[in-house]
Amino acid sequence: MIDLYGFTGPNVRKVVMALEELGLDYRVIWVDITAGEQFAESYRAVNPNSKVPALVDHDGPGGAEITLFESAAILLYLAEKTGRLLPEDPARRWTAISWLAWQVANHGPMAGQATHFLTYAPQQGIEVPYAQDRYGREIRRIYAMLDERLADREYLADEFSMADIACFGWVRVAKGQRIDIAEFPNVAAWSERISARPSGKVQLSDPKTGESERSTPFTAEQFATLMRSGPGADQDR
Amino acid sequence: MIDLYGFTGPNVRKVVMALEELGLDYRVIWVDITAGEQFAESYRAVNPNSKVPALVDHDGPGGAEITLFESAAILLYLAEKTGRLLPEDPARRWTAISWLAWQVANHGPMAGQATHFLTYAPQQGIEVPYAQDRYGREIRRIYAMLDERLADREYLADEFSMADIACFGWVRVAKGQRIDIAEFPNVAAWSERISARPSGKVQLSDPKTGESERSTPFTAEQFATLMRSGPGADQDR
Repeated sequence: MIDLYGFTGPNVRKVVMALEELGLDYRVIWVDITAGEQFAESYRAVNPNSKVPALVDHDGPGGAEITLFESAAILLYLAEKTGRLLPEDPARRWTAISWLAWQVANHGPMAGQATHFLTYAPQQGIEVPYAQDRYGREIRRIYAMLDERLADREYLADEFSMADIACFGWVRVAKGQRIDIAEFPNVAAWSERISARPSGKVQLSDPKTGESERSTPFTAEQFATLMRSGPGADQDR
Repeated sequence: MIDLYGFTGPNVRKVVMALEELGLDYRVIWVDITAGEQFAESYRAVNPNSKVPALVDHDGPGGAEITLFESAAILLYLAEKTGRLLPEDPARRWTAISWLAWQVANHGPMAGQATHFLTYAPQQGIEVPYAQDRYGREIRRIYAMLDERLADREYLADEFSMADIACFGWVRVAKGQRIDIAEFPNVAAWSERISARPSGKVQLSDPKTGESERSTPFTAEQFATLMRSGPGADQDR
């Protein structure tokens, strides 16, 4: 059995998609990051970074329990555990890992900053034009790069892999980054291909409110709680 | 033979350190990111993200040539190629990979933003108090987390690994992030341990200017060039 520590949001969605694709037994342990549960000592023992996702596999290597944090580490672990969702061909496999690494070091963090400055902060009455321009431009560059990559292939490393799963989590919430996917037709077509998979249809619903997508702004209190942990927390919505 | 595409900066330093630790044959192909060389079509064929590092191993798996980009992917590849710099014990190995993933998705990007808003932008006369506060707080949280992790162990995953190499690259340039490492004594002690290794003493010098550390502000033109590619480029200094 696998315990996934999570909440609604793109980084947790990556892991849910992978677990669904792989048909592994798992349960979600909800960590309400809008209520500050990620700062509890008990949770920091699982993830010292106070973010979601984290994962405990009670049947890890050699039958021992293993704990991981960060979506990239978790996706690589699940691929190694099952021998699936990374290409077998070595060159293609390392291409997939390059794109996975790119997603977590570029697309994810910059989408998080774009969402903060273009959506969440303005909802609180905070407008920072320099940062809106900086992250608005960078996130467009990133989508243009994805679009170019997908011009002549169906998936980032030619076959469906952890790299696609990682990117899809954040492409799915591009609206908050003020990106209209329709402007990037290859990304839009790729996104539809992935959305059509059973794993792409899973709903992640906040167990307290039943909300599967955040359609309402954070309250001032929730915003302050998310800001306690800095820019990372809002990346996880 | 390995070709490392790089320039001075923390993400390239990670790869140089790993190559030195592993005693692999390599040469550095300089890509002057302050002059826009990363945008050339010839370089984008190696790294579509227009950043450094990227790596071509002419003796990859099965003797074939292989191309990788993103420091996390490169470090994982070099560990797999050599069977070194990641722990053998599975639990410890995945702890090291979790910290490596954390570095490239949290410490690196946020250190990049802190450096931009607290050092590079002010050098150009740009002061953005909201962003200075946001990233200044987040980067302090990150160093406090590192300090806590290193309170009772010598290395992030107990033995020296790719996780330490990744973090060291950016800890070494903490000053630009307006972080005084002396305030984080466990990080300072760890940094001294790593600095004492031969791989920690390697100088990365700009082949045009001979500068091994950036001690002067970018010119307005260099700043504009770096900004063309968005927030990522300045992370590579």
